[in-house]
Amino acid sequence: MLKPEYIEETYRKLGGEGLLLVSRSKAKRRPNAMTIGWAFLGRFWDEPFFVVAVRKSRYTHRCIEETGDFTVNVPGRGMEGALRFCGSHSGRDHDKFKEAGIRSGKAKKVSSPVVLGSSIVYECRVAYKANIAPKSLPKSVLNGIYPDRDFHTLYFGEVVACYRGPRA
Amino acid sequence: MLKPEYIEETYRKLGGEGLLLVSRSKAKRRPNAMTIGWAFLGRFWDEPFFVVAVRKSRYTHRCIEETGDFTVNVPGRGMEGALRFCGSHSGRDHDKFKEAGIRSGKAKKVSSPVVLGSSIVYECRVAYKANIAPKSLPKSVLNGIYPDRDFHTLYFGEVVACYRGPRA
Repeated sequence: MLKPEYIEETYRKLGGEGLLLVSRSKAKRRPNAMTIGWAFLGRFWDEPFFVVAVRKSRYTHRCIEETGDFTVNVPGRGMEGALRFCGSHSGRDHDKFKEAGIRSGKAKKVSSPVVLGSSIVYECRVAYKANIAPKSLPKSVLNGIYPDRDFHTLYFGEVVACYRGPRA
Repeated sequence: MLKPEYIEETYRKLGGEGLLLVSRSKAKRRPNAMTIGWAFLGRFWDEPFFVVAVRKSRYTHRCIEETGDFTVNVPGRGMEGALRFCGSHSGRDHDKFKEAGIRSGKAKKVSSPVVLGSSIVYECRVAYKANIAPKSLPKSVLNGIYPDRDFHTLYFGEVVACYRGPRA
């Protein structure tokens, strides 16, 4: 389900302009996108996984807690501005899709939407989650990455669908 | 440090014949290899990571606990037999390198050795670890994957070196 031929592009963009992690609050139903540069791809329990790291203070954290799913969207051409916008504003205060000039579409298997015009879409259902445990962190990471003690939750998303993104 | 062009091959073999996770006990110094089909590759805290899952009962678990590092070796040609052997025997009772017909070499930056003749080598230093928490597991996983409650520890290995493997 996780196609090896997609992985190089996914990984390059993860370390470059970033990927769009998309979720949706149950109440508002408004799609919400967050730019991410940290994530893991892999296989566990014989299934393909996309693991994303979301700080507890983030609006995305609340959305994923509510729905138990998310999508990861590898950006297509011309989405650089949207990536910058979604990396610096909160979905609490903004309709990020509208303001970033991107459009959402229905996912095939999860409730979170996808970004139209993406190069690759991963639809993920949370199968496991783990909070980063401060006591297991190297001191340099604790102080460098978590000066405000705003720790990440790691969401282990089983990839239930993976395909070349739908046109914008 | 984690080269995008290596990732497709790494992921294909992870889901195919497997990769060799190599460690070494501090006391015995004998290299120990374990065949793995489950792992994660990614970026976290601005660094490249290889995350491996090792059950607490495994000899490899003790070795990584002792040294704090490991290598992941993407097998080269002719290593199918070694992968089968290292997936079905324990380093407690066997000199697995010798019996599997593979040779170890010195790593560049970590104390665990590498497998000569590998296609790609990842040298990893454990920066964080997390035990799988039973209470967060789906029931199907708890009973299907952990019938003996022999849970995995996830070792988050920062990739400190990554290169085309040395010749056998």
